[in-house]
Amino acid sequence: MSDSWLPSLKTDTPQAGFELAVKLSRMAVKITQPSDDVRSHLRAAYEQDAAQLIAASQVVAVHFQTVAAANNWWR
Amino acid sequence: MSDSWLPSLKTDTPQAGFELAVKLSRMAVKITQPSDDVRSHLRAAYEQDAAQLIAASQVVAVHFQTVAAANNWWR
Amino acid sequence: MSDSWLPSLKTDTPQAGFELAVKLSRMAVKITQPSDDVRSHLRAAYEQDAAQLIAASQVVAVHFQTVAAANNWWR
Amino acid sequence: MSDSWLPSLKTDTPQAGFELAVKLSRMAVKITQPSDDVRSHLRAAYEQDAAQLIAASQVVAVHFQTVAAANNWWR
Amino acid sequence: MSDSWLPSLKTDTPQAGFELAVKLSRMAVKITQPSDDVRSHLRAAYEQDAAQLIAASQVVAVHFQTVAAANNWWR
Amino acid sequence: MSDSWLPSLKTDTPQAGFELAVKLSRMAVKITQPSDDVRSHLRAAYEQDAAQLIAASQVVAVHFQTVAAANNWWR
Repeated sequence: MSDSWLPSLKTDTPQAGFELAVKLSRMAVKITQPSDDVRSHLRAAYEQDAAQLIAASQVVAVHFQTVAAANNWWR
Repeated sequence: MSDSWLPSLKTDTPQAGFELAVKLSRMAVKITQPSDDVRSHLRAAYEQDAAQLIAASQVVAVHFQTVAAANNWWR
Repeated sequence: MSDSWLPSLKTDTPQAGFELAVKLSRMAVKITQPSDDVRSHLRAAYEQDAAQLIAASQVVAVHFQTVAAANNWWR
Repeated sequence: MSDSWLPSLKTDTPQAGFELAVKLSRMAVKITQPSDDVRSHLRAAYEQDAAQLIAASQVVAVHFQTVAAANNWWR
Repeated sequence: MSDSWLPSLKTDTPQAGFELAVKLSRMAVKITQPSDDVRSHLRAAYEQDAAQLIAASQVVAVHFQTVAAANNWWR
Repeated sequence: MSDSWLPSLKTDTPQAGFELAVKLSRMAVKITQPSDDVRSHLRAAYEQDAAQLIAASQVVAVHFQTVAAANNWWR
C-alpha cells in the first residue's frame, strides 16, 4: 500500500469512473487479504457463484456513487 | 471493455434512467465474470432464486440513486 | 417494458412516494425475471421467509431515498 | 393501505424521526406480506435471530437517513 | 422507549459521532427485541461470528453517514 | 475507546481517505468485539472467505462515501 494508487477521484468519462469504482472495490479486498495467491484462489470460486458476483457488484455500485458525485455526475 | 458503453449518465426520462441502472448492475457482473457462457449458466439458476433476485434489485436501486441524481431527479 | 411505467418521480404525498418505491423494487425484479408465473411461484415462498421480506424492504428503503429526494422530501 | 399512514416526513425531534424510520421499515414488510398472522408468526422467529435483527436494523438505518434529511437533520 | 435517548444528532467530535452511530445501531435492535435477556444471549453468539460482526458494522456505517451529515462533517 | 482515534475526517489525499475508511470499518467491529484475541481468531477465518471479504469491502465503501463527502471529494 506504500505506492500511490488513488491520486484523484476525477475521471474524464463516466465509464472511466465506473472502472475506478471497480478498482476501489478490489483495493478494499486487497487491503484485508494482501496475499495475491489467496485472492486468486478465492476469485476462481466466487466467479462461479451468482450470489457473490451480485454482492461484489453492490460494492461497485456504492463506490460508483462516490466517484460520480466527485465528478459532479459528469454533467 | 474497450468499447464505449457509458457515454453519459443523462437520460431523457426516469424510465430510461431505470434501464440504465439495470445496465450498470449487469456491467459490474460482466467485468468480474467476462465469460458469456458462465454468466448465462449462473443467470438460469438465480432467476429462480428469490433471494438472489432481491439482491440484484438492491444493486439496481443503488445505481438508480446515482442516475437520478445525475439527472437532477428529472425535475 | 415497452409501455411507459415511470413517467415521473414526483408524487403528491410521502405515502404515494413510498408506494412508488415499492413499485420500483418490483420492477427491478420483473426486468430480471419477466415470467409472471415464476415470480408468483417465488413470491409464495418468500412471503413466508422473514429474511427475504427484510431484504425486500431494504430495497424499498433505498428507492424511497431516491423518491424522497426527487420530491424535495415533500417539505 | 387505503388509510393515510404517512402524512409527512417531518418530526419534532430526532427520536421521533427514528421511530418513524422504524415504522417505515415495518410498512414495507406489511405491504409485501399483508397478513397479520403470518407476520406475527415470522416475527416470533426472527426476534430470536441475531442476523435478522441486524438486517432489520439496517433497513431502519436507511430510512433514518431519509427522515433525517427531510428534517434538515434537526439542526 | 418513553425516555429521551436521542435529543440531538450534533456531537462535538467525529469520534463522539461514531459512538452515536453505534448507539443508533443498537437502539434499532432494542426496539425490535426489547428483552435485555434475549439480546444478551444473542450478543454472546454473534460476537463470535465474523459475518454478523461485519453486518453490524455496516449498520454503524450507514448511521455514521447520517450523523456526519448532521454535523456538516465537523468541517 | 478512551483514547482519541478519530480527531478529524479530513485527509490530504483520496488514498489517505480510503485508508481512514478501512480504519472506521475496523473500529466498528472492535467496539462490538473488544477482544483482540477473538478478532484475530475470526480474521484468520474470514480472510479465507470470499463472501465475508466482499461484505467487509461493502462497509469500507460506505465509510469512504462519508470521508469523501467530508473532504469535498478532494476537488
